Amino acid sequence: MKLISTLTLGALLAAGSVLATEKPAPAPNGIELPAYYKNWRVIGVSHRQDKESMRVIIGNDTAVNAARAGNTKPWPDGSILGKLAWKDQIHPKWEAATVPGEFVHAEFMIKDSAKYVKTRGWGFARWLGMEQKPYGTDQLFVQECLACHDQVKDNDSVFTHPVPLP
Amino acid sequence: MKLISTLTLGALLAAGSVLATEKPAPAPNGIELPAYYKNWRVIGVSHRQDKESMRVIIGNDTAVNAARAGNTKPWPDGSILGKLAWKDQIHPKWEAATVPGEFVHAEFMIKDSAKYVKTRGWGFARWLGMEQKPYGTDQLFVQECLACHDQVKDNDSVFTHPVPLP
Repeated sequence: MKLISTLTLGALLAAGSVLATEKPAPAPNGIELPAYYKNWRVIGVSHRQDKESMRVIIGNDTAVNAARAGNTKPWPDGSILGKLAWKDQIHPKWEAATVPGEFVHAEFMIKDSAKYVKTRGWGFARWLGMEQKPYGTDQLFVQECLACHDQVKDNDSVFTHPVPLP
Repeated sequence: MKLISTLTLGALLAAGSVLATEKPAPAPNGIELPAYYKNWRVIGVSHRQDKESMRVIIGNDTAVNAARAGNTKPWPDGSILGKLAWKDQIHPKWEAATVPGEFVHAEFMIKDSAKYVKTRGWGFARWLGMEQKPYGTDQLFVQECLACHDQVKDNDSVFTHPVPLP
């Protein structure tokens, strides 16, 4: 029993070290990759023909509850929207279907109307590729986000319209 | 307090009746609409240009765990895959983006290699539109499902390849 316990503890410590090492670096504005986002529920989907990529839009509980209640103008503080993008690929057995290929990035909008007052109430961050490298070299990267999202400033700066569900 | 309690009870009973009435009818093969599927996690996404519709593929815990472990040849018994489809729509503020419009259907594949041995181990069912009307007039509707899914019989009859995730 003593041996098993020691081995188990060692395995746990080793696993902990790996996890700690693999945690992606924060974005240049200090935003950390949200934990457990891969378990979030679906809010929308899009196919960007200009970027030849497909996206699933997911949200944390606050965002999903707001989306399903139609309470998104504005989205409540605490909402986090995530967008996962993959390169387009033709389905090998169904050529009229575009399906996800290589993983491109995970990007997030975090609603905190006080903390992010200078960026329309949203904190922006993106991590590139399977290695989840933070996007941007300094805090100015958010100006690029805003330049695009300003086109939807009448929709709380969000492109996504939550999908209708039965 | 008595009045409030009676009113509350009445409201609960009324809500219960509505919910009972709104439960969609089972598919012609007896399969019931899976409960809570709207809370399932993402396994894939596709854009069917031939059907002018976008799909998100979701799964119950058994299916999502199998997908993330690469354990899908075959998918384990108990896996349920769901596909939610919406008509294509151009994003009003971004014309190179196709986004979901009207909800088309929710369809499911339920893995039970013994129960569904005659249909390659999968039970098929689909519910149409926001009113979730069962698809098909009799049990023969599954032949239509199989005719198409036979093209991917070397992939356990599943078109979806789980998305890569970091």
